[in-house]
Parts: sequence; structure tokens; C-alpha cells
Amino acid sequence: MPSIVESLVRSVQAHPALQHVNCAVLPNRQQIIASIERLLQLVYPGYFGKQGLTSDNLPFRIGELTLELNDLLFEQVRCCLLHGQAASGPAGSDVGAPAASESKVRNDCDEQAATIVGEFFSRIPAVRERLAKDVQAAFDGDPAAQSVQETIFSYPGLVAITVQRLAHELFDLHVPLLPRVMTEYAHSLTGIDIHPGATLGTSFFIDHGTGVVIGETTIIGQNVKVYQGVTLGALAPAYGQLLRGRKRHPTIEDNVTIYAGATILGGDTIIGRGCVIGGNVFITSSVPAMNTVIAEPPKLKYRERRPKGGAAGDLTMDFQI
Amino acid sequence: MPSIVESLVRSVQAHPALQHVNCAVLPNRQQIIASIERLLQLVYPGYFGKQGLTSDNLPFRIGELTLELNDLLFEQVRCCLLHGQAASGPAGSDVGAPAASESKVRNDCDEQAATIVGEFFSRIPAVRERLAKDVQAAFDGDPAAQSVQETIFSYPGLVAITVQRLAHELFDLHVPLLPRVMTEYAHSLTGIDIHPGATLGTSFFIDHGTGVVIGETTIIGQNVKVYQGVTLGALAPAYGQLLRGRKRHPTIEDNVTIYAGATILGGDTIIGRGCVIGGNVFITSSVPAMNTVIAEPPKLKYRERRPKGGAAGDLTMDFQI
Amino acid sequence: MPSIVESLVRSVQAHPALQHVNCAVLPNRQQIIASIERLLQLVYPGYFGKQGLTSDNLPFRIGELTLELNDLLFEQVRCCLLHGQAASGPAGSDVGAPAASESKVRNDCDEQAATIVGEFFSRIPAVRERLAKDVQAAFDGDPAAQSVQETIFSYPGLVAITVQRLAHELFDLHVPLLPRVMTEYAHSLTGIDIHPGATLGTSFFIDHGTGVVIGETTIIGQNVKVYQGVTLGALAPAYGQLLRGRKRHPTIEDNVTIYAGATILGGDTIIGRGCVIGGNVFITSSVPAMNTVIAEPPKLKYRERRPKGGAAGDLTMDFQI
Repeated sequence: MPSIVESLVRSVQAHPALQHVNCAVLPNRQQIIASIERLLQLVYPGYFGKQGLTSDNLPFRIGELTLELNDLLFEQVRCCLLHGQAASGPAGSDVGAPAASESKVRNDCDEQAATIVGEFFSRIPAVRERLAKDVQAAFDGDPAAQSVQETIFSYPGLVAITVQRLAHELFDLHVPLLPRVMTEYAHSLTGIDIHPGATLGTSFFIDHGTGVVIGETTIIGQNVKVYQGVTLGALAPAYGQLLRGRKRHPTIEDNVTIYAGATILGGDTIIGRGCVIGGNVFITSSVPAMNTVIAEPPKLKYRERRPKGGAAGDLTMDFQI
Repeated sequence: MPSIVESLVRSVQAHPALQHVNCAVLPNRQQIIASIERLLQLVYPGYFGKQGLTSDNLPFRIGELTLELNDLLFEQVRCCLLHGQAASGPAGSDVGAPAASESKVRNDCDEQAATIVGEFFSRIPAVRERLAKDVQAAFDGDPAAQSVQETIFSYPGLVAITVQRLAHELFDLHVPLLPRVMTEYAHSLTGIDIHPGATLGTSFFIDHGTGVVIGETTIIGQNVKVYQGVTLGALAPAYGQLLRGRKRHPTIEDNVTIYAGATILGGDTIIGRGCVIGGNVFITSSVPAMNTVIAEPPKLKYRERRPKGGAAGDLTMDFQI
Repeated sequence: MPSIVESLVRSVQAHPALQHVNCAVLPNRQQIIASIERLLQLVYPGYFGKQGLTSDNLPFRIGELTLELNDLLFEQVRCCLLHGQAASGPAGSDVGAPAASESKVRNDCDEQAATIVGEFFSRIPAVRERLAKDVQAAFDGDPAAQSVQETIFSYPGLVAITVQRLAHELFDLHVPLLPRVMTEYAHSLTGIDIHPGATLGTSFFIDHGTGVVIGETTIIGQNVKVYQGVTLGALAPAYGQLLRGRKRHPTIEDNVTIYAGATILGGDTIIGRGCVIGGNVFITSSVPAMNTVIAEPPKLKYRERRPKGGAAGDLTMDFQI
């Protein structure tokens, strides 16, 4: 056992990029998730978190949540800011930074974090305005929805959009790391991967949602509907780091509907207002407003299967998925 | 800080649809999830939950679980029934309902809830009969399965089917909200989205499963196999609320296999018994029994890539995903 | 209530395959998940789990984690070994095994488990070497990644690959059940389904990842990139149990990139080094090295939509997804 531990310690020391050692302050994924849970309670009070809310106790509950969130977010934002500075250097370079400048950096990050969190709170009412329209869009858009309440209680698209709208404000305030951890947590809950940098218009509805990918520089207008498996992505992402910072993802204008499995790629691709993009359509160039685009579905070959007991073996061998 | 809290409270008051305030009884997502966890323990005793079960202590454990579940489900069912009544009016209308009729409504809901939960328990043995066949189908259908136990311990398809079969009984008993919260919880665990209204035949197997969507009015026969990314959906769901309540999703007859990524749409679409639907097939009309349907895969263009150091730049620029 | 409990007990007794009763030792899913969480802390110390690590306390923390993991893994490995033996017989056959041989079987399993866990620990440093390259590949491959830290904190692909690399070692050491429970847990977190049997080369990157399926006998070379919705699967998996144990999944050579939604099937299919496989490509035969394969996207039909107020009804009725 001691030799196992020794070899593991050596392994940790050999790969600074895989560890966080000798860093006094670190962002903490569990705390970030805890802050998301409280943000959901603040945005949809009574739906998530404590129950029995009345007009009388509501202000106290909101006050309590706000204080808790303030502590959680301040701590995580300052850690992420400190971290972002360390990460500008090579990975693991935060080990042994000169002590003098360090304390100034920390003070700066603390001040910045307080300002950012204050600004973030002041934006929440406007975020809730947009979420109220998303909730209505979810109910209006899905014939299986029995009530507005059902959409808030159970629709994964609404969870993903809510977390992204909140994370987007932190992204907009230049907080590193934190917004992405938030949206990836929503991704793990919902299968819907919306980068915190994406710009979402009001009354946005995602149905079912598993497999949806919406890239960092996507811009989406109002009243847009998206179904499961839709990708709004980049062309040739293989050339990775060269493209960092450029608009790589499409623009979707108002009142567009994009059906399941459609793929729309490229930073110059614009889907004009009022378009309907059919299922499995693959688009890498712009579509003028008010067009319906349908993919000719693959030609189908039909062949009668022989009943079992006949030449079922044959059938088995030449059938390919 | 006080001004932040004040603006958040105003924001909550301005959007009744996003909050649940002044409602004495509310369904609770955490409690519904707790009931699912106990239902899994009841359905697969020893696999989930307490261990060390013997023939002797089994009846006590089952008794304990049943009592816990009875309390949990009664509370959630009555909340959902009350809620369903409130939701018939406009969102948030439960605020300030006349007190006289309210107490009668509550009594009625309590009675109804007790009846429903009793009926639900009496149906569980029959659900377990069906699940025993699903477990066998999972083992028989997957060459990677090493044992029946492995499928119960780890197959996401089995989790999604188990939760749906239980939720379907509550859906059938006209409980609002609760069944959908249950299946959406399974969706978040598995990436498999089966509406509680769907009718699943016996020996149903879903392999891998991420991205599977099975709509509310789907009817599935016996011995059906479905792979990842299959959609059994509605045509033109854009026209949302107009279609509420109609059969919008397909019928799949006995002994059908549907391979990965296939899409079958429409309430009048019937896939006849014994059919094999190939990967990525897109179908919006019926297929007669005993047919194999294969999508002609998209034509492929091959082009040799020049080695790096040659004109790799060119290659980069004209390659589109 | 007593009659409900009675009928549930009868139901449990009637389906031995769905229960684990009269088994003294059982693998436990919660304990297996607990071991994964600690393995992530051991592999990425400071990122996951306790914070405030310094060069001084690191060996103690690693020692503590190793001891905890040793206990957890020993218990689960021996349960899985015992279980694997029982599962060789018909389901549920562990009830009433002859007591004499049973104690010998247990001793053997205990010894084997101790050897396996020791060997597993000794392989972790080599697994970390590979993970360090995967982390770098994730940063290099994604223009949206702001730092190496962001990839460790939030990329689902990295979670899925980390868990698979660890589970693969246990699979390689012939532990039944446990490795699959581990990778299916990662599947539920990430939507990425990599069988523990798959062989992954170094510097492997999965972007977004929802819907990725990588089968048991897949072999992947170095510097391979895979996007969301890619399937590396088997042909005709319908013929299930007949194919158990054969190579059924493709081989992907070094430096291959596979874009979103591509499907590559079959145990004899080899994608040669340096190939680029485009989005939605469907391949069931080998591709020579250094080729780009692009699927001709489905032909698109454009049609102008009439503004609302015109003949919108028509539009609704003839539009099919």
C-alpha cells in the first residue's frame, strides 16, 4: 500500500495540468451547482425549493435566498477571476507566483467580484421577464403540455434555457470558467448543450431537446422553436484554436422553426425570419426569409421478409442495419 | 442589498406564472423523485435500495416500502389533483380562490387520491410481469450483455421503460402532472424521452437509447426493439395546441426492429408486424407487415488528403464538416 | 394494505430474475458510484473533492483516498466476482447453492479481488499519463475552450473518457458487471456511451458528445476526434446473442476526425489513419488512409411561405416536418 500511494503521489506531481495543488483559492464545482439550484428557486419560487410561500413570507424568503446566493456567487466569481489570471499563463503556473503582486491581484479580484455579483443580481428581473415568455412559448408550442405548470416542473428545454440565460449574464460580465460550468451542468441534466456565449431571443422553445448543440457565437431571434438533435455549429471545427474568438456559428432570425436533427453550420449562415427548416436538413449557407426548406428524405428500399422457418438465415446475413 | 431584494420581490409578483405563492398544497419534484426511487426498490428488490434481503425479512421490507410509498404518493397525487383543477383556470389563478368551495374541492381530491393510490398498488404486480419480459428482452437482444443482472444494474433503456410503465398507470388513472414529472426525471437520467401516455407492449427493448423520443399517443406492440436516436413523433408539431388530444404518433406492431436514428412520424402511420426499419430511415406513411425498409445512405465523396507540409492550407479552407 | 403487501411479496417471489433475495453479498450501485467519485478525485486532485491541497498535505490526501478506494473497490470487486459465478448459471440460481463449495468460492473470490485491486492501483499512474494527453487534446481541439482548467471542470467528453479508461482496466482484469455499471453511470451524466471493453488510443477528444455510442470491440488509435451523435457500432445487432464475443465494431486508426452524426459499423471496417469522416456519413466498409469522406447532403427543396393572413391553412396541412 505505501508504494502504491507513493507512485500515485509521483504521478500527481508529474502532471501539473491535472491537479490543483498549492492554490489557495479554487472554484468549486459543487458550490457552483449549489448556486444554480438557488438561482432556480429565486427564478421560480415555490416550484423549486421551500414550499408554503405566501405574500407575507415571500420577501423574507427572497431575502434569504439572495443573501445565500450573494455569498456563494461572490466566492466562486472571485475564484474564477483569480483562476482566469493564472490560466493566462501556462497550465499549473499558479504554483509559486511572486507573493507581492499576488495580494494586489487578490484585492482587485475581490473588488471586481463584488461589482459583478451586484450587477448580476440587478439583471435577474429582466432575465425573469424573458423566462416568462419562454414558459408561455413552451406551453403554446407543445400539444402534449397539459398546463404551464407542467412545463416549469418537467421540461428539460426550460431548464437548459433558464441556466443559459443566467450564465450568459455572467459570461457577458467576463467571468471566466463559471458560466461554462453552469451550462455544462444543465447539459448533463438535459442533454441540451447551449454555450453560455450564445445570444437567445425571447420566447425560445426547445422540445425534447436531447442532443441539441448551440455554439458560442450563435445568435437567435424571437419566437424560435428548436427540436431534439438540432446542431447550430461551426464549420470545420478541426482547425480549432485558429478560430477562437471569431463568429463561427449561425444567426437564426425571428419566428424560425427548426425540426429534429437539422444541422446548420457556419458564422456567415443566416436563416431569415419566418423560415421553417425541416428535419435532418443540412445547411451551410444562408436561407432568405419566409422559406420552407425540406430535405428530400433518403430513398427507401422495401423488401418483403420471408417468414421464419423459411430462409431466415439468408435474411440475417445480408441485412446491414 | 435591500434594493436588490425589493426588485426581485417585485419581479416575482409581476409574473404569477413563474411562481407558486399562496398555494397551500403543491406537488414537489423532490418528493416525486423520492417516490420513483422507492418504486425501483419495490420492483427490483435487492438491486436497488437496502441489501441483505432474505425470504424471511422480505415481507417486512416490502411492507415498509409500501407504507412509505403510500404516504409519498398519496400526498403528491392529491397535490397534483388540486393543482390540475387550479390549472384548468388561467395560470396562477389558484391565488384567492373562494374559501367555501375550496374545502370541498380538497376533500374530493383527498378521496380521489386514496382511491387512485390503492388502484395503482394493485396494478404493480402486473407491471412487474411486463418488466420481467423487458429484462429478458434486453439480455437476449444485446450481444454485449454478460448477464441478466447487468441489464438491471446498468441499462438506461430498462430504467426509462420501468419508470414509464409505472407512470403510465398513473396517467391512465388521470393523475395530472405527476406522470410527466416521473418520465422527465427518467429522461434526465437516460436521455430517453418516453411520454407517460405512450402504450408499450411486452418484451420492449431500447439499446443505448440516448436521443430516443416516443410521443404521447404512440402504440407499440410486443417484442419491439428500438436503438439510440429513434423518434416516434408527430407531423408538423408546429401547429401545437390545435392537435392536443388527437392521435398524433405512430403505431408499431409486434416484432418490429427500428435501428438507430430512424424517424417515424404521424398518427396514421402503422409499421406492420415483423418489419425491420433501417438506420436513419425517415417514414411518414404506413409500411405493410414483414417488410425491411432501408434508407439509401447518402452518396459519399472520397478525396485523398495531401500530407501535411504540402498544401494543407487549401484543404482547411474548402473542407466543410 | 396487508393484501397489497401480500400481493407484492408474491409478485417478487414469482420473478427471481427481478430480485436479489437470499444473496449474502451483492454489488451495490451506490457504492460503485462512490468509488467513481473518489477515482475522479485521485485522478484530478483539487479539481474534484477536497480543496486546499498543498505539496505538504498532498501525500496524506492521496493516502486517505487510496485507503477508502481500496475498501470500496475490494468489496465491489469481490461481490461482482461472486456474482459473475452465480450468473453463469440461470438467473436467480444463487438461491440455495450448496454450502460446502460456497465458502471455497468466497475465499477464492476474496483472494482474486485483492490481487485485482492491487493491480488496478498500479495501473492508475499510466492511466493518468493518457488522461493528461486527453485533456490537452480537448483544449487544442475546441476553439470555445478558454483554458485547460475549463475542460477538466466542465467537459462531458473528458468525464466519459476518464471513467471509461479506469473501467477498461477492470474490464481487462476480467471483473464482471462493475466496469459496465461505471461506464453507464458516466453515460447517464454525459449522454456518451462508451463500452468498457473499447480500446481508446491516447489524445482522444469527444466534443459535445451527447448521443455518442462506442461499442465493446471498437479499437481507436491516437489523436482521434469525435463529435456529438457519432456511432461506432455493430452490423445487424438484431442477431444478438449469436455475435457475443466476436469483434463487431470498427477500427479507427491514428489522426482520424469523425464529425457529428456519422455512423461507422462493422467489425471488419477500418478507417485508415488521417481520414476525415464528414457529418452524417454512413459507412459499413473500410476507408483507405488519408481520405476525406463527405456525405452528399440530402437535396433541399425551398418554397416560399405565404405571409400569415393569406392561405396559411394550406401551408399547415401540406407541410410534413
